[in-house]
Amino acid sequence: MTEQKQVILHGFWASPYVKGVELALKIKGIPYEYVEEDLTTKSTLLLKYNPVHKKVPVLIHNGKPIAESLAIIEYIDETWKDGPPILPRDPYKRSQARFWVNFIPQHLFTAMILVLKTEGEEQQKVVKEVFEKLTLLENGMKDFFTYGTATASVESENMGLVDIFMCSFIGAHRIHEEVLGIKFINPEKFPMLFSWLKAINELPLVKELAPPYEKSLGLVQSLRQNALKSTAAA
Amino acid sequence: MTEQKQVILHGFWASPYVKGVELALKIKGIPYEYVEEDLTTKSTLLLKYNPVHKKVPVLIHNGKPIAESLAIIEYIDETWKDGPPILPRDPYKRSQARFWVNFIPQHLFTAMILVLKTEGEEQQKVVKEVFEKLTLLENGMKDFFTYGTATASVESENMGLVDIFMCSFIGAHRIHEEVLGIKFINPEKFPMLFSWLKAINELPLVKELAPPYEKSLGLVQSLRQNALKSTAAA
Repeated sequence: MTEQKQVILHGFWASPYVKGVELALKIKGIPYEYVEEDLTTKSTLLLKYNPVHKKVPVLIHNGKPIAESLAIIEYIDETWKDGPPILPRDPYKRSQARFWVNFIPQHLFTAMILVLKTEGEEQQKVVKEVFEKLTLLENGMKDFFTYGTATASVESENMGLVDIFMCSFIGAHRIHEEVLGIKFINPEKFPMLFSWLKAINELPLVKELAPPYEKSLGLVQSLRQNALKSTAAA
Repeated sequence: MTEQKQVILHGFWASPYVKGVELALKIKGIPYEYVEEDLTTKSTLLLKYNPVHKKVPVLIHNGKPIAESLAIIEYIDETWKDGPPILPRDPYKRSQARFWVNFIPQHLFTAMILVLKTEGEEQQKVVKEVFEKLTLLENGMKDFFTYGTATASVESENMGLVDIFMCSFIGAHRIHEEVLGIKFINPEKFPMLFSWLKAINELPLVKELAPPYEKSLGLVQSLRQNALKSTAAA
């Protein structure tokens, strides 16, 4: 009989979806085995565990696979109840947290990635959209922090669901800003987002999981170069 | 002082996202006031309650707004605990339910809508994609029902989360099939999906909420005609 680790995570180092799951595991203090996937030649196990989307992250707990980052994080929160809570306990606060962790990847992050893939007038239009979405998030977070997230008090190193998504998707904004020469998280325009991200990025847990700056920068630069090449070829 | 209803739902009669929320409210037996929105001239209240997306559904409970259908349904399940449970109680089954209620609207339904908006070769490609996604769902549901959804036993009229999404997004497949002349939910290809949808559509609750067949047919026909017109004009 071979020993099987109880918790296994299939991931890719630069995926924000994977990073969110890793943060949740670390917050709960759950030991896990990490399997890095080569996204160009996905492993047989990944295809077996996530036949629908064939994507990371996939968490395997006692042999049973779970896909989709939010579903995984909610599963972690519901299964390891002894650790710090990730979702707020109050149903209304939970609903607001779920709303924003939908907005951050699907609306804000998607637009930020599109900026990397466009140029000229088209890019200006997308940049305007990113600023509109950042304004919505800045204003929304004022209400959100007023309602209180119960678990989202970054000061106490107790990250909540929205902190996790903010960290995974927007935490590395400086890299995008450096590659594009555009300041997105401007402290004068978005004082709340700026100080929130600063506090998140200073957490020991977040520093521990951050890939080397140069490695991330290289990836974003090559994404940008490939996008420009294919635009030029089209 | 004017009396304010405790639960108010802003909706649009043909929105599957709204229908899911209405099903959840009815399952729990929660009385609510329904406000039909004219999506061409959205009400001041809708813009106030959902400033981020300006979309229905929005549920207002004791004056506090919630947007995003899944967030609303989970809120309903967590707030009115006395009614029949909508999400399974077991964390693993919950994770699987959350996975599929992401897949049904974002992957399957999106592709089905695209079939309405395309023609010729392009349409054939999308139709193939719909059948691939139906195959994934048919196979996935075999596992899902094996794990058991705890609350998804349609026979007992106790609809669960995945039943709700299946009903709202795919329940009216016959209308799409009639407009397009394509049989999607073929009982020979997809025996499980076919019998599941049939059982769902026979529930008194579902019949009660279904808009008149002719009205839905008219809407889908006009969607198709407008899409073809704009293709011809392009």
